[in-house]
Amino acid sequence: MSSTYGDTLKLSIFGQSHGTAIGMTLDGVPAGLPVDMDRLRRFLARRAPGQNDWSTPRKEGDEPEFLSGLLDGRTCGAPIAAMIRNKNTRSGDYEQLHDCPRPGHADLTAQVKYDGYQDVAGGGHFSGRLTAPLCIAGGMCKQWLEEMGIRIGAHIAQIAGVRDVPFDPLKPQLDKVGPVFPVLDGAAGAWMRDAIAQARSDGDSVGGIIECAVTGLPIGVGEPMFGGMEGRIAQIVYGVPAVKGVEFGAGFGVAELRGSQNNDGYAIRDGEVVTLTNNAGGILGGITNGQPLIFRAAVKPTPSIYTQQQSISIHRMEEMPLKIQGRHDPCIVPRAVPVIEAAAAIAVYDAILSRLPNYRRAY
Amino acid sequence: MSSTYGDTLKLSIFGQSHGTAIGMTLDGVPAGLPVDMDRLRRFLARRAPGQNDWSTPRKEGDEPEFLSGLLDGRTCGAPIAAMIRNKNTRSGDYEQLHDCPRPGHADLTAQVKYDGYQDVAGGGHFSGRLTAPLCIAGGMCKQWLEEMGIRIGAHIAQIAGVRDVPFDPLKPQLDKVGPVFPVLDGAAGAWMRDAIAQARSDGDSVGGIIECAVTGLPIGVGEPMFGGMEGRIAQIVYGVPAVKGVEFGAGFGVAELRGSQNNDGYAIRDGEVVTLTNNAGGILGGITNGQPLIFRAAVKPTPSIYTQQQSISIHRMEEMPLKIQGRHDPCIVPRAVPVIEAAAAIAVYDAILSRLPNYRRAY
Amino acid sequence: MSSTYGDTLKLSIFGQSHGTAIGMTLDGVPAGLPVDMDRLRRFLARRAPGQNDWSTPRKEGDEPEFLSGLLDGRTCGAPIAAMIRNKNTRSGDYEQLHDCPRPGHADLTAQVKYDGYQDVAGGGHFSGRLTAPLCIAGGMCKQWLEEMGIRIGAHIAQIAGVRDVPFDPLKPQLDKVGPVFPVLDGAAGAWMRDAIAQARSDGDSVGGIIECAVTGLPIGVGEPMFGGMEGRIAQIVYGVPAVKGVEFGAGFGVAELRGSQNNDGYAIRDGEVVTLTNNAGGILGGITNGQPLIFRAAVKPTPSIYTQQQSISIHRMEEMPLKIQGRHDPCIVPRAVPVIEAAAAIAVYDAILSRLPNYRRAY
Amino acid sequence: MSSTYGDTLKLSIFGQSHGTAIGMTLDGVPAGLPVDMDRLRRFLARRAPGQNDWSTPRKEGDEPEFLSGLLDGRTCGAPIAAMIRNKNTRSGDYEQLHDCPRPGHADLTAQVKYDGYQDVAGGGHFSGRLTAPLCIAGGMCKQWLEEMGIRIGAHIAQIAGVRDVPFDPLKPQLDKVGPVFPVLDGAAGAWMRDAIAQARSDGDSVGGIIECAVTGLPIGVGEPMFGGMEGRIAQIVYGVPAVKGVEFGAGFGVAELRGSQNNDGYAIRDGEVVTLTNNAGGILGGITNGQPLIFRAAVKPTPSIYTQQQSISIHRMEEMPLKIQGRHDPCIVPRAVPVIEAAAAIAVYDAILSRLPNYRRAY
Repeated sequence: MSSTYGDTLKLSIFGQSHGTAIGMTLDGVPAGLPVDMDRLRRFLARRAPGQNDWSTPRKEGDEPEFLSGLLDGRTCGAPIAAMIRNKNTRSGDYEQLHDCPRPGHADLTAQVKYDGYQDVAGGGHFSGRLTAPLCIAGGMCKQWLEEMGIRIGAHIAQIAGVRDVPFDPLKPQLDKVGPVFPVLDGAAGAWMRDAIAQARSDGDSVGGIIECAVTGLPIGVGEPMFGGMEGRIAQIVYGVPAVKGVEFGAGFGVAELRGSQNNDGYAIRDGEVVTLTNNAGGILGGITNGQPLIFRAAVKPTPSIYTQQQSISIHRMEEMPLKIQGRHDPCIVPRAVPVIEAAAAIAVYDAILSRLPNYRRAY
Repeated sequence: MSSTYGDTLKLSIFGQSHGTAIGMTLDGVPAGLPVDMDRLRRFLARRAPGQNDWSTPRKEGDEPEFLSGLLDGRTCGAPIAAMIRNKNTRSGDYEQLHDCPRPGHADLTAQVKYDGYQDVAGGGHFSGRLTAPLCIAGGMCKQWLEEMGIRIGAHIAQIAGVRDVPFDPLKPQLDKVGPVFPVLDGAAGAWMRDAIAQARSDGDSVGGIIECAVTGLPIGVGEPMFGGMEGRIAQIVYGVPAVKGVEFGAGFGVAELRGSQNNDGYAIRDGEVVTLTNNAGGILGGITNGQPLIFRAAVKPTPSIYTQQQSISIHRMEEMPLKIQGRHDPCIVPRAVPVIEAAAAIAVYDAILSRLPNYRRAY
Repeated sequence: MSSTYGDTLKLSIFGQSHGTAIGMTLDGVPAGLPVDMDRLRRFLARRAPGQNDWSTPRKEGDEPEFLSGLLDGRTCGAPIAAMIRNKNTRSGDYEQLHDCPRPGHADLTAQVKYDGYQDVAGGGHFSGRLTAPLCIAGGMCKQWLEEMGIRIGAHIAQIAGVRDVPFDPLKPQLDKVGPVFPVLDGAAGAWMRDAIAQARSDGDSVGGIIECAVTGLPIGVGEPMFGGMEGRIAQIVYGVPAVKGVEFGAGFGVAELRGSQNNDGYAIRDGEVVTLTNNAGGILGGITNGQPLIFRAAVKPTPSIYTQQQSISIHRMEEMPLKIQGRHDPCIVPRAVPVIEAAAAIAVYDAILSRLPNYRRAY
Repeated sequence: MSSTYGDTLKLSIFGQSHGTAIGMTLDGVPAGLPVDMDRLRRFLARRAPGQNDWSTPRKEGDEPEFLSGLLDGRTCGAPIAAMIRNKNTRSGDYEQLHDCPRPGHADLTAQVKYDGYQDVAGGGHFSGRLTAPLCIAGGMCKQWLEEMGIRIGAHIAQIAGVRDVPFDPLKPQLDKVGPVFPVLDGAAGAWMRDAIAQARSDGDSVGGIIECAVTGLPIGVGEPMFGGMEGRIAQIVYGVPAVKGVEFGAGFGVAELRGSQNNDGYAIRDGEVVTLTNNAGGILGGITNGQPLIFRAAVKPTPSIYTQQQSISIHRMEEMPLKIQGRHDPCIVPRAVPVIEAAAAIAVYDAILSRLPNYRRAY
């Protein structure tokens, strides 16, 4: 484990925030699949910073360079490798982080785990910047899933206490998500942006919840127990920095429901088996049941805030105050929306590739 | 993937509810570790049904037989294998489930995935009974962790809307959890049992939330990205049937917090680095920070209820009502408490074994 | 890794020679596959000792008990688990092996690796007896491959310098292998048995070479680089105790050939692409080329011999002579033939299940 | 599986011969390990072509660029990624290979497996050029092993029937291997070069055998069964194109030995346990026994030869002759020597990192 994910797919993410480059290799992809580079660039642009008033002004320009695995616009069977060169190279700004860990960041844990040899600049390998290569991999998987009729979309369900309209669990409104600020209810989106602006002006930050839906899945994707869709998705989504909760369908709400309310009864509609509700989030026994797969991820407020915080000197083993410098997002939730889509796309595509042939269909 | 879990440890769970036996193999355990069989039996008894008024009267008597891996009460380096023979063997009761899937169960998904070849009796491989071998593996890991000063405990945080006192995130009260009904607040426990009894008399069921804490962890366990503690724990906890949500520390509550509230400031206490709060649930960047690791799992109401439900005939492709027979728990949350502890123990012990030596300590 | 093998299949082998039981779990098998128990028993009988004059008189009676994964004679999607109870239980005979390691056995390496906690009786987990569960898994894979038109057969290519006729690399004579003593040339077999009898009467042992062929494979099984058929097969075949060499096609003979001799030219026969020779052993770039897959495994002489050997006392750190007691095969090569077939069947079946769908065929 | 290797280490190799770049990511390396870039460059130079009269005149100049994982000359805990840009970019030379497969190459198998979407230029992902990134990973592992007192060296044991002096199995003469042409016996090396020159002038090629030794290993590295050192090494060595055989210690020679000859008796020398011979190649039960680990790999003659060969047109399904153009090594064995060392270094270092702590030493 570590920075490697997948069952049939083998995704490996590399890079440090201020190193030479960040990137990914994705092994195990069938040959002959087309990759639409313009669509991929537009997808990556949704994650890129510096493009509006609710994110950091730092420019990234995440233009990926493909090193292998593609030929004439299609996968060729070789592992796909792509990288993004870092333009903001390493400076001396971060040296003090070896001694004085930022609360809420991985500074202390990395310092102990790597005995001080970790790259602290910009958070090193723990930086949210590492989600860019995740989006390269996920953006491609998303395209390949769409060829199979499987769509993935996410929206901001909540920021700083302001809630968007939830997805209809049986017919998630993927086409109604705003193209710039990804919410269903524009008014809620305006309140969210206000909350972000307020946090910015306070030198503080806010967290939120992202809701993601996958439609068009057949029945039968996922495996029992530890290979279930919930575990597969949770493992990759928890690989996204700042995620602290993942729930499926009714999620933590099941604690308030009775079985007679929570069970999704079956019916026949247009010759297809459907459920009347979707508290299961499209998953029963770890396996997709043909209904939309729906999950939510909780994203904590950016730990980089400008107000003074209590920290310590590791070397002197004494307490000291800390004020963080630099430019930071007061809220990463909007930019994390395509990242969650990317993570879901990778998990779902991997689960589909890993599906065993069965006796009747096989061979 | 599938019914196999682990990085250094390789846990494999086998069995069907009404097959010959259920069991597990656990490979990758160091040699020489003692196993206290009496403690293991007592741990398994916490999961066993039929012992009180809030669970099913079906008796299991989950006495494990060890087939390999132990010698004179200690691990010998060979894979550990253990099984529990099924006493309630297969009868014809379940045949209709091939045709009429129970809402909330894996009947439909298994029927499609396995083309009708799955063992439907008692839920087959999807049965909650498969958590017994998980508890064999986890019960041993729990003992080995305790030898290292690492303790794991869980309690019922909520059932049917009734809430227990939460763990103190900095000093979880592991010793205050009730030995029979695992809550911190006995009065809340009594209300919970009332809610369960009410659901039983209504032929219905209730869900809940389990909170689990791991204390005594050093700084530095877990890996970046997909090898983080959140993902490792979520993957195995989602392997427990009925779990629909997993959150760490402040969890979904982060959506309501600002960074200045959510960040856990550092301080020095008795020569040790501590945090002043524990919203991170003891994990930063996927890596333990030396504070208690705390997570919660949402457990859905048992899908087996006695009220009539809407289902379908798969073969005739038409709707039909379903009434479930047999004996079933109106609430599995109390019995799931040791299962969540077991899952956490396996994930944590695996992460510790997988920790890389570093340059200074190594070799 | 360790006692676990496979990519899509997850095979886990457990047990010690004189422990309670030996066995295996096999996860990842499609549902609905039939298992012919009589054929499986006959296959296991080929490995069983005590049935003739060239092997040990110790009786095993390797009757497997299936614990899960089968229903009405077919796989049901749950992991398959089976075990064989040990009848020769542990006695005090072996205690001295903690101190005085047998040359050629794993006694010393296990003693150091497991700090003396390993089960030394009968070699513990290192015993050749652990190949019985490998044969359970492999015997089933062999049946499932045959349903797909893929056959696996092996013969003794050499014992103690006596050579059998080799397989025709383009048309291996699987049906000509002797049913009792697995050679193509009965006269060579008689000489081999003489050599074994001579070694037995000398209190010594002899080694040999097993040649294995897989026919009926389509083009395209196996992956590039570390997923190639050679590496997949070698990894599992080296899991069989006593194997010290594995070669494919012309094998070590390639060192004497020129490219013009070693390259297998292509031709068309009956509308199919064939090769004119088969020095590649049916594998190019790690991927099957449609010709018979052929490999050979070198099996060392049984290390248990009755002549006095030079050993040491680990505790006293001084040299001492050793004479081994007990009943032991003077040659395990004949009994290893089905084991090599089993190993090949598992590797080939796993590679087939792991084959990616491609763009045109897929979905 | 596929182009990914390792247990604790996760090595992923990417690239096509004439694509943008070739490279590797290596995850799971402890932080703080130094990398001597000059030594690494010298190691890579041993594999590079175009530097003498017995290899292809094509120049590569394999200068690796490190993209992540290093900081100030040491590993920083992040995955290590490095790439080599391809200078010989894709031209139209290879298009006919979609139709007319070269005997002995992966052209046919790739064509079928990837449905014609593979990159045929220069062999694509199947090119021997992909061993350059393997050498980057292996060259670093070699350095880290040397810090632990573990050395790896290889020599040409045979080319075209000419044999070098073998390694002394108990004291392999690593320091006596020629620095330019890697043999122990300079006269044999001269004969080998003659044989290569002769093959070149004949438009043909020759194969050979490489012998590799690892010294300084402690007792106890490797796991039982499928995690044994033989299987670990074989899996990665078979990932090197053209390898068709791997044997350990006495290897295939065991078929001619009796147990009394093959068993390595124990003795005490200078307070250490040693063996009197080393037919086991330093491995018993899959686990190192403290003696030199010795193996040999058979390397087939380069399939690219200039004499006319029999091939087919896949599209027309008819036979046709083929004459290969371009510049090719008449013998890749000398350049494969560092590749085999690199493969061994990766396998050994991974096995060391994967070694479990045991009860006494642990934690």
